[in-house]
Amino acid sequence: MDCDYYVLLMFSFELIAKDGEARVGKLTTPHGPIYTPSFVSVATHGTVNTLSAHELHGLGVQVIIANSFHLHLKPGEDLIEKMGGLHRFIGWEGPLMTDSGGFQVFSLGAGKRQGVGKIAPIFPGESAHESRLSWRDSRGPVRVDGDGVEFTSYVDGSRKHFTPERVIETERRLGADIILPLDECTSPLDDYRQTGAAMRRTHDWAARSLREFESSANKGQALFGIVQGGAFADLREESASFFSARDFDGYAIGGSLGRSKEDMHRVLEWVIPFLPQDKTRHLLGIGEIEDIFEIVSRGVDLFDCVLPTKIARTGTLFVKEAHRFRIHILNTRFRDDPLPVDARCDCPTCSNYSRAYLRHLFLTKEALAARLATVHNVYFMESLMRQIRSAIKEQRFDALKDEWLSAI
Amino acid sequence: MDCDYYVLLMFSFELIAKDGEARVGKLTTPHGPIYTPSFVSVATHGTVNTLSAHELHGLGVQVIIANSFHLHLKPGEDLIEKMGGLHRFIGWEGPLMTDSGGFQVFSLGAGKRQGVGKIAPIFPGESAHESRLSWRDSRGPVRVDGDGVEFTSYVDGSRKHFTPERVIETERRLGADIILPLDECTSPLDDYRQTGAAMRRTHDWAARSLREFESSANKGQALFGIVQGGAFADLREESASFFSARDFDGYAIGGSLGRSKEDMHRVLEWVIPFLPQDKTRHLLGIGEIEDIFEIVSRGVDLFDCVLPTKIARTGTLFVKEAHRFRIHILNTRFRDDPLPVDARCDCPTCSNYSRAYLRHLFLTKEALAARLATVHNVYFMESLMRQIRSAIKEQRFDALKDEWLSAI
Repeated sequence: MDCDYYVLLMFSFELIAKDGEARVGKLTTPHGPIYTPSFVSVATHGTVNTLSAHELHGLGVQVIIANSFHLHLKPGEDLIEKMGGLHRFIGWEGPLMTDSGGFQVFSLGAGKRQGVGKIAPIFPGESAHESRLSWRDSRGPVRVDGDGVEFTSYVDGSRKHFTPERVIETERRLGADIILPLDECTSPLDDYRQTGAAMRRTHDWAARSLREFESSANKGQALFGIVQGGAFADLREESASFFSARDFDGYAIGGSLGRSKEDMHRVLEWVIPFLPQDKTRHLLGIGEIEDIFEIVSRGVDLFDCVLPTKIARTGTLFVKEAHRFRIHILNTRFRDDPLPVDARCDCPTCSNYSRAYLRHLFLTKEALAARLATVHNVYFMESLMRQIRSAIKEQRFDALKDEWLSAI
Repeated sequence: MDCDYYVLLMFSFELIAKDGEARVGKLTTPHGPIYTPSFVSVATHGTVNTLSAHELHGLGVQVIIANSFHLHLKPGEDLIEKMGGLHRFIGWEGPLMTDSGGFQVFSLGAGKRQGVGKIAPIFPGESAHESRLSWRDSRGPVRVDGDGVEFTSYVDGSRKHFTPERVIETERRLGADIILPLDECTSPLDDYRQTGAAMRRTHDWAARSLREFESSANKGQALFGIVQGGAFADLREESASFFSARDFDGYAIGGSLGRSKEDMHRVLEWVIPFLPQDKTRHLLGIGEIEDIFEIVSRGVDLFDCVLPTKIARTGTLFVKEAHRFRIHILNTRFRDDPLPVDARCDCPTCSNYSRAYLRHLFLTKEALAARLATVHNVYFMESLMRQIRSAIKEQRFDALKDEWLSAI
């Protein structure tokens, strides 16, 4: 009981404001609060591309998500635990999540075979693509059975076997504030039968994960469930009911989101009503700017996506007044453009450098190029999320949404 | 006269202390002072690998050197002038130098043919190597004649013709505080006759550069001469006499420095006595840690080298108590090493991260790896230079030198 009480003190989700289904909350973790809706920056191997932990904090990043699958393979949870845990190892003092590896198993299996991501055809900049790239060298099939997943390590070629229990143990030892259980991601091309079977396996694994989580020494961590069910209404409802009936600390929405953005919106509309109001909702792996308004308006609190940092590396930068909110800095029209990337942005990049200089850095392949672009995109996302939280609190979320989406 | 007086106010070199031939000075420029001896960080295309201008300043960097040859080819001085000059373009508010391209012409010509740098065999981490890499795609021979240099641009394949006057004009438009004239670098494998001919051509070009410099509108820039003469005592003396008799604002020592470090020391001993005490002396392209003590003890004030940033990119980091002052972080002995790179260093990398984490970043090919390593190496050099300046002022330079060199 003492232990539960301690967790309760460390973790809580407080609803601060609602505007329609859009909501502002405060998710308290042992490493500080996360004000939601919040973007979760992706730090697959423990770092957000080019940025130091100190810099992330300065850019307004509240929470980052690392990947226990990749960290297990390299450098291994033994080493990270020995170095004082993941927070200490990577120098990040704020809230930290770890993903389980379910999506990576999907990327390696069905996703790779079918060439698709969470929405088919593959979403530009979506993490499936990146994960598949890491798997180029992998050999041997992915075998999913009732017990877990078997696959070949891309690090040393050895066969690995993940079970729900082992994944929880790995995440326990990594020590992130919020952890996710092993799930089986399905492809948008999988049929009803395949999606249903994977969902039932995910439920079984989730129950085992929860049991393992509750039986292991509590280190002030929270466990989120991951709702599956693809783009099938009854499966999504079944999965959402399954999870909300169990005592998870929050709920993620994973797996396939259909074949279009409209499908994704429908998935949220099926799932959200089944989830408790007083728990956090995390949409996994989604986050183009035009998506953010749609998912927040449907009651999502957290979402993560590699897109802002991934596109930054190749010179694509967020700008409010641009087609799909992006410019490609290598375009010749920026050759002698003395303006900052976004005239209304006060990030360190926009405060100090011109578009012409940034273009020069990309053309000369300077490492600083990706870094200045990443700084801008990360700050831009955080700034947008601050605007969204303010708008919800002031009951003008729809006006802000219209202001942004009318510009596309 | 007003104009000269203005330059005098903007540029001055004041000798603050001497300990043997080692000296501490203050070189005043329109963009602030440089306390010497000082390392000059190399920013070939206008940026020091991975670091922002703001960060360079924070690490204690006093002065950086860009390359007018590379900047002329990409993005061109037209654009940079239009963007408000090089300082403004790259966001660096401190003292700034531009090199002329003489060394790049050497790299492309004799250096490439013979596979050598400033000291033969090629110096590890020496800039010749890097410059040659940029030239892989170049076609067509380098032709040096009395008028200047003709070569093929690696950017667009066009034939380019550099004259001493055009190089000064390019550097005028870039607007660095200290500029260097076009010179002809020789190889350590060139014989006495070839080295002498190149030296005489360099003298002719230097006189033309000075004339062009004095006739063009003064923008508060200083022009340094570049002493040539290879590893031949009489040529070096002749060249040093030639330059010291002319009104350059400072003197660089360029070209071949022989076949060994001892040869390099001898070159300095031949040249330095001919140079005026009240002008700055810059040794071009040299700067391994063990060299620094030797060159400072012979009266050199400035030196530049790509080594600290170049080796950082591949995981080689400066440590005082290590063989040749470096460790390679990928070595397995650092796998679970919780200590910072150098326990006595207070740079941002050593203050926040372990060797184990840095090794993990290199192994996972994170862009942050090169950056954290570069931060450390740049700071380490600046910290060493501060120690050297203090030691000279306190008449204990030899003791400091012994303390460091006995550790090799």
